[in-house]
Amino acid sequence: MNTIHPTAVIGDDVELGDNNYVGPYCYLTGYLTVGDNNRFESHCAVGTRPEHTQHWHKDGRTIIGDGGIFREHTSIHAAMTDGLTRVDNDVIMLRGAHVAHDCVIEEGVTLSCDATILGHVHVMKGSNCGTGCKIHQYQVVGSWSMIGMGCIVPKKSKLEPGQTWVGNPARRLKTNMYALDKLNVDEYDLIEETARWTQLVKNHGL
Amino acid sequence: MNTIHPTAVIGDDVELGDNNYVGPYCYLTGYLTVGDNNRFESHCAVGTRPEHTQHWHKDGRTIIGDGGIFREHTSIHAAMTDGLTRVDNDVIMLRGAHVAHDCVIEEGVTLSCDATILGHVHVMKGSNCGTGCKIHQYQVVGSWSMIGMGCIVPKKSKLEPGQTWVGNPARRLKTNMYALDKLNVDEYDLIEETARWTQLVKNHGL
Amino acid sequence: MNTIHPTAVIGDDVELGDNNYVGPYCYLTGYLTVGDNNRFESHCAVGTRPEHTQHWHKDGRTIIGDGGIFREHTSIHAAMTDGLTRVDNDVIMLRGAHVAHDCVIEEGVTLSCDATILGHVHVMKGSNCGTGCKIHQYQVVGSWSMIGMGCIVPKKSKLEPGQTWVGNPARRLKTNMYALDKLNVDEYDLIEETARWTQLVKNHGL
Repeated sequence: MNTIHPTAVIGDDVELGDNNYVGPYCYLTGYLTVGDNNRFESHCAVGTRPEHTQHWHKDGRTIIGDGGIFREHTSIHAAMTDGLTRVDNDVIMLRGAHVAHDCVIEEGVTLSCDATILGHVHVMKGSNCGTGCKIHQYQVVGSWSMIGMGCIVPKKSKLEPGQTWVGNPARRLKTNMYALDKLNVDEYDLIEETARWTQLVKNHGL
Repeated sequence: MNTIHPTAVIGDDVELGDNNYVGPYCYLTGYLTVGDNNRFESHCAVGTRPEHTQHWHKDGRTIIGDGGIFREHTSIHAAMTDGLTRVDNDVIMLRGAHVAHDCVIEEGVTLSCDATILGHVHVMKGSNCGTGCKIHQYQVVGSWSMIGMGCIVPKKSKLEPGQTWVGNPARRLKTNMYALDKLNVDEYDLIEETARWTQLVKNHGL
Repeated sequence: MNTIHPTAVIGDDVELGDNNYVGPYCYLTGYLTVGDNNRFESHCAVGTRPEHTQHWHKDGRTIIGDGGIFREHTSIHAAMTDGLTRVDNDVIMLRGAHVAHDCVIEEGVTLSCDATILGHVHVMKGSNCGTGCKIHQYQVVGSWSMIGMGCIVPKKSKLEPGQTWVGNPARRLKTNMYALDKLNVDEYDLIEETARWTQLVKNHGL
């Protein structure tokens, strides 16, 4: 059973799994599928139309997995026609974080307060996008990255897995040993994910 | 006819034109005039009081033109007494963007996600203020400017028309050929707008 | 008497003093105590749970003093168990500003638009945290500080009282004479507050 606050607005085409909490003033809309055990705190906008001049008036698809935490004033935009915005399991979006159209946010990613992930970005598993960071369209954030507080990531940055990035514009600070140790990542995992990242970067035309 | 979501709150002194969409949890208030064909997605606050210690409890005026797109969590503040906040036709404000009291946002301007335009700023036509940029009070952003993602524009910057700005603090990167070409701006247009910009800068005491 | 908009949601454990204004779509919840004469403009989330992986499902305590201004889309998080989030008298939070769990925001502090104060931060009296600034967890912002627009304050910065900080990462620009003069701060006040700041920095393990 889902717990839905009486002030929440949920569109007709939204499919909710089980055991979700949808708090006050949350707006879930469009062709949106939500898994189980998610918590939408308050004032969330999920599945709204893509921010793209050709798509102000078209609904697209959004899929959200299980176990996510979506805090106050967060937003997740639907994809453009034939696209898909995908937020995998156990993703945390802190207050004010934003995921734009056609993004993929993989398992276990944290988007801190006011982190902004622009259109078509792919954030690979276990990454942490810090408070107020901004990630340019079409970027691929490698697995287990740490994007520092206030870090501005332009199109040309190459965010290979397991690194820490800071500054405006982003520069590599160091290997993200904190995450690699905590998540028990060995060098074979890193090699595998770096290969996957390389392919994604190629697919994104970067 | 306007389409107004039942959860929207619209004040008694608000005048709405025709064919506007006002989505869930939008709050339109104060001495606010809205034209036609605008779309307020959700959780917008428009016409609220100026953020100024002398004006917490006074309503001011706001005028919005036609064809605007105002996405989730955007806000536009009314002017101080005898002032005017003006948002012209075809302005796009992406999720979380903010226009403070007594601003002028000219035709065709885009304010990207979380762009913050502080009090008394004048953004000239066709400019693009990037994701998370912050523009200091009383600035004048020249026509066809591109203010880059995360760019912080202090009071002393001189943003003449047709340029691209990046960094914290803002520095000029290059001529914004992308916009000038796309919008078919020739050198006479640029000279004219630069003259208008020079006058506005003078009026703003910069 | 308090003025509470019919769309506001106020939890059972919230205690409101007198003469507060709670505007549309405000959500006040948790073990929250609010003094007198505060204004919550719209879309505020106050007293919601701490953003901490161990505390998604636990309510904590929040105390707000008198005479505060809390604008659109602001948020204040409750403390973790046994902790306290404290916002003292005459605090101003402009649109989109955020105070995380277990913070102390002292009297007369202004948090400008989209300023983000992360967990366990202590902002000492009379400080001004500028538009879009980000303050790292456990920081202590000295009294009468000016944190500039877009300034990113990492953990290692030492923000002694009465200074102005700018940039990403933060660097000291100058003595904040504007505030010291305006607030009539003499050198004995500064010495006293610097001693208090030194003690707080030590308590915070910085």
